[in-house]
Amino acid sequence: MEYNIAVVKGDGIGPEIVTEAMQVLDKVGERFGHTFHYQEVLAGGCSIDANGIPLTEETIEICKNADSVLLGAVGGPKWDEVPSEKRPEKALLGLRSALGLFVNLRPAQMHKALSDACPIKPEIIGDGFDILVCRELTGDVYFGRHYRRESDKGWGETGADDMNYSVYEVERIGRRAFEMAMKRNKKVCSVDKANVLETSRVWRETMHRIKDEYPEVAYSDMYVDNCAMQLVRNPSQFDVIVTGNLFGDILSDEASMITGSIGMLPSASMNESGKGMYEPIHGSAPDIAGKGIANPIATILSCAMMLRYSFGLMAEADAVENAVEAVLDAGHRTADIAAPGEKALSTSEMGALIRAQL
Amino acid sequence: MEYNIAVVKGDGIGPEIVTEAMQVLDKVGERFGHTFHYQEVLAGGCSIDANGIPLTEETIEICKNADSVLLGAVGGPKWDEVPSEKRPEKALLGLRSALGLFVNLRPAQMHKALSDACPIKPEIIGDGFDILVCRELTGDVYFGRHYRRESDKGWGETGADDMNYSVYEVERIGRRAFEMAMKRNKKVCSVDKANVLETSRVWRETMHRIKDEYPEVAYSDMYVDNCAMQLVRNPSQFDVIVTGNLFGDILSDEASMITGSIGMLPSASMNESGKGMYEPIHGSAPDIAGKGIANPIATILSCAMMLRYSFGLMAEADAVENAVEAVLDAGHRTADIAAPGEKALSTSEMGALIRAQL
Ligand SMILES: CC(C)[C@H](C(=O)O)[C@@H](O)C(=O)O
Ligand SMILES: CC(C)[C@H](C(=O)O)[C@@H](O)C(=O)O
Repeated sequence: MEYNIAVVKGDGIGPEIVTEAMQVLDKVGERFGHTFHYQEVLAGGCSIDANGIPLTEETIEICKNADSVLLGAVGGPKWDEVPSEKRPEKALLGLRSALGLFVNLRPAQMHKALSDACPIKPEIIGDGFDILVCRELTGDVYFGRHYRRESDKGWGETGADDMNYSVYEVERIGRRAFEMAMKRNKKVCSVDKANVLETSRVWRETMHRIKDEYPEVAYSDMYVDNCAMQLVRNPSQFDVIVTGNLFGDILSDEASMITGSIGMLPSASMNESGKGMYEPIHGSAPDIAGKGIANPIATILSCAMMLRYSFGLMAEADAVENAVEAVLDAGHRTADIAAPGEKALSTSEMGALIRAQL
Repeated sequence: MEYNIAVVKGDGIGPEIVTEAMQVLDKVGERFGHTFHYQEVLAGGCSIDANGIPLTEETIEICKNADSVLLGAVGGPKWDEVPSEKRPEKALLGLRSALGLFVNLRPAQMHKALSDACPIKPEIIGDGFDILVCRELTGDVYFGRHYRRESDKGWGETGADDMNYSVYEVERIGRRAFEMAMKRNKKVCSVDKANVLETSRVWRETMHRIKDEYPEVAYSDMYVDNCAMQLVRNPSQFDVIVTGNLFGDILSDEASMITGSIGMLPSASMNESGKGMYEPIHGSAPDIAGKGIANPIATILSCAMMLRYSFGLMAEADAVENAVEAVLDAGHRTADIAAPGEKALSTSEMGALIRAQL
């Protein structure tokens, strides 16, 4: 089969890690008989430099026409002074919205080989944990109206944002979460703040309605403040966490940090037709950009998610994940995950070792 | 001096722990020559049972007229089926709003004697940490309009909430945070989501304006998702964290859990004239209510905050905190903080030991 992939290398370490990941995809293609065609486009800081804006119509069109999008990372201090409407991160929000990527899957798994890097005590972690955060990505206060008004109490200029969820949006993300849980440990924890927010009350009512469609799945509700605590207290209690855009932003980052393997974690953002954007959860790490020492594993694992979720290539996805696992088990490390005194591989050495396993 | 305290024992373990705390206040009064007058009022579940609503005008009036309010905990499964407008937690929101308690101070300190209970690895914690979360408590999406509307995209019923902050509200909480920092380690980290929210952009602009009034304080901004990570990665980096109501709800709970001493943590909520409501951050723990085994320390430490912040009784506040410290250092524990096999004191035994130190 042939697949067209739009490639947004982006800023900072983006180009280095994406280059390794593309070579991994090529190796998968060789072994399994697929061809991946890449079309590189600009987004983020490099697009601001070239075009004056972080996301052009051309980039959007190419991403829409591709079978999926591979993204490195966007942003960096160079664009800190750019006015907020034109900041690099607007490229991310713009792509999510233009492609309708309403579901964001963020696995937070502790890699056993890296358990030393986990910040939580081993008594709490036990045999490890494997959480899938299923974050809604095109709604909530992120995409409501953002505006200023005068305070009606005479309290001066007021920043305001419209937080909201419709029944349809909740059903759509909710069903995805249940479907994911059916392929995993059959547990869904829905996180909201229904004791305060109307948005959350519609969220919770809708979740309660659809949960009956999945009688095999154990369902629970949790308040967001409690979830922020439970992730630290006992992360193993979770399987799939489903939540809105804002709470998902916070909780998925917290869950990632708890794994201690933040340079290793991939993400997938998908729309209704299965098209997706795949990217590491870490940032553009401008401090180490261009040095060839960045860890490409999160991007490579993002390609595995692309193979699985957008192309339905299960064996191929497993092969990539197993290759990464094997390389880690053999003790190979990039600088970010090397123990003090341990040898650190370059970005391309790590990529090559993973390809050698394929 | 004489002080009038409105006492909301509340539900679950509330009555037991507040009773101990009142006796500690009485002991402080004896030793330092003050008289504390208590007026007990109902709020939360017990008020629903007695009056059909969680918070009556009478309770509000008595709390307003008192010099400060001591609260145990409200809520429990008994009132889970009560319609959302009448839930026990509405008593908390109602009191915060009626008394104008715009600043919520939540210290997150690791008690050295309890470092075994900390979920984070000792390499990360080092010499411990001492964070003060300064949460805005009467604004944000908590107190904006909550309503339902039809989706304008044909996506069905939509829950909506108005998130907002005015310049005045941010200045008010911001100055409090800087003043607290001046008495501590002179660092303020302001947490927002200014890359997405207009509310946060007004927040950040205002903070940047007032920070120049406190040139001795080291100021930084942090996005809320990053803060949720940094609290796990390196809590010692923080001194005062100042943030809005919603982010403060999530981050203060996360910070509490990271201390590992959640049964020990007090809180203060104050208004412009210094009146405050003081309460433990833990809940009503209905599972152990009435057994006389709850840990009264968080409530007792809340009284210390009352002495310090509402009554300006610094020596008295220090005396209470030192008494708690001494009892913990001597190895005394209630069930929630006892190591396996260690002797667990009852609520009143713990209270008596603390009073004996005064
Ligand atoms: C850069 C920012 C707008 C973005 C978000 O909040 O969604 C990021 O934090 C993420 O989680 O992808
Ligand atoms: C009970 C609830 C409304 C409340 C809040 O969200 O403020 C609680 O979580 C708290 O932090 O005091």
